[in-house]
Amino acid sequence: MKFYDVNGAPSPRRVRIVLVEKGIEYETVPVDTPNKAHLEADFLTLNPWATVPVLQLDDGTCISEAIACCRYLEEAYPEPPLFGKNSKEKGIISMWEHRMEWDGFLAVAEYLRNTIERMRGRGLTGVVNFDQIPALAERGKKRVAHFHNLLDERLGHSEYMAGDYYTIADITAQVSLDFASRAGLKCPEDKKNILRWYNLVNSRPSAAA
Amino acid sequence: MKFYDVNGAPSPRRVRIVLVEKGIEYETVPVDTPNKAHLEADFLTLNPWATVPVLQLDDGTCISEAIACCRYLEEAYPEPPLFGKNSKEKGIISMWEHRMEWDGFLAVAEYLRNTIERMRGRGLTGVVNFDQIPALAERGKKRVAHFHNLLDERLGHSEYMAGDYYTIADITAQVSLDFASRAGLKCPEDKKNILRWYNLVNSRPSAAA
Repeated sequence: MKFYDVNGAPSPRRVRIVLVEKGIEYETVPVDTPNKAHLEADFLTLNPWATVPVLQLDDGTCISEAIACCRYLEEAYPEPPLFGKNSKEKGIISMWEHRMEWDGFLAVAEYLRNTIERMRGRGLTGVVNFDQIPALAERGKKRVAHFHNLLDERLGHSEYMAGDYYTIADITAQVSLDFASRAGLKCPEDKKNILRWYNLVNSRPSAAA
Repeated sequence: MKFYDVNGAPSPRRVRIVLVEKGIEYETVPVDTPNKAHLEADFLTLNPWATVPVLQLDDGTCISEAIACCRYLEEAYPEPPLFGKNSKEKGIISMWEHRMEWDGFLAVAEYLRNTIERMRGRGLTGVVNFDQIPALAERGKKRVAHFHNLLDERLGHSEYMAGDYYTIADITAQVSLDFASRAGLKCPEDKKNILRWYNLVNSRPSAAA
């Protein structure tokens, strides 16, 4: 299995963590996004949406979208389960995961892509160029503050994001939190519940992925 | 099982279609969103994110986020499978479903919520009010045009969105297409592949859901 990756990028990191958690062997193929390799024909045949990560299975099948890569890995390598062990858990974990992506990951991306010079004309991922929208950068910043509140509230009465064990919802929350921090939107120090949980997830070997 | 629904709303429609496809019995609880019932304390105890749909299981557990409701139903009522029959299919279907949500559903929402008078101050779902951003309405409109192109291209060489049978990826695409149409962003008539596929999915009894 090949894994098309960008070193340090948050979206493929969600998949990298799952690969480590499940102890899966794979071959990394770096994609040179600063030099726009993801917008070239070779890469677009693997993923016409021009996003990284992409998992390429041994039969050539390509799976893109971070959560879909993680889903494939969960189904093909069930242990340890990261998406739940029964119907109810699976529904609840999917709910928290999706919410973490929307309130966390996409809020940070909204802020960052509409702010930094390097992303000019790249307000969204994909092959279509969209101008930055300053009002959207502001909105993203407010949303990340709200995300920190939500996360802290939730973790005040749940050991992990979706219950009493580590799941894909923690992974998306963890990656979003680090992504926000790197974008200059650090978690306020008074968020004690986040801090408690972050120490837990960040001490796992997969956190280095 | 109770299903908190808004008659005619696109997000709960994704779940309604799954309920019909799987022949599941349930009780509908209407939520009066025009009168902001989703922002009142009673509803927020069920779903603090103030969004509809919510599935409430017989033990009281609440699952919100449309895709998470659908995931629960898939796991609890496996027949007919809408999320795939093996690891590879599950990864590919998740990829297409997620992309349809992002390129389709969320693009229409971006246009609509930043355009119509009724959504003033409600640029995003949830408990935090965000002003409308006119530039975002424009972006949403362009994204929907791109969605129509993507969909038509894909359906030119695949019978259904994610392969040779009807799945959750078709449901999200179908709901997004109808949502766009109702928002005034109709699919151009030259998109023959979309038309071919739409006739297929729209002739299923679940399309009336």
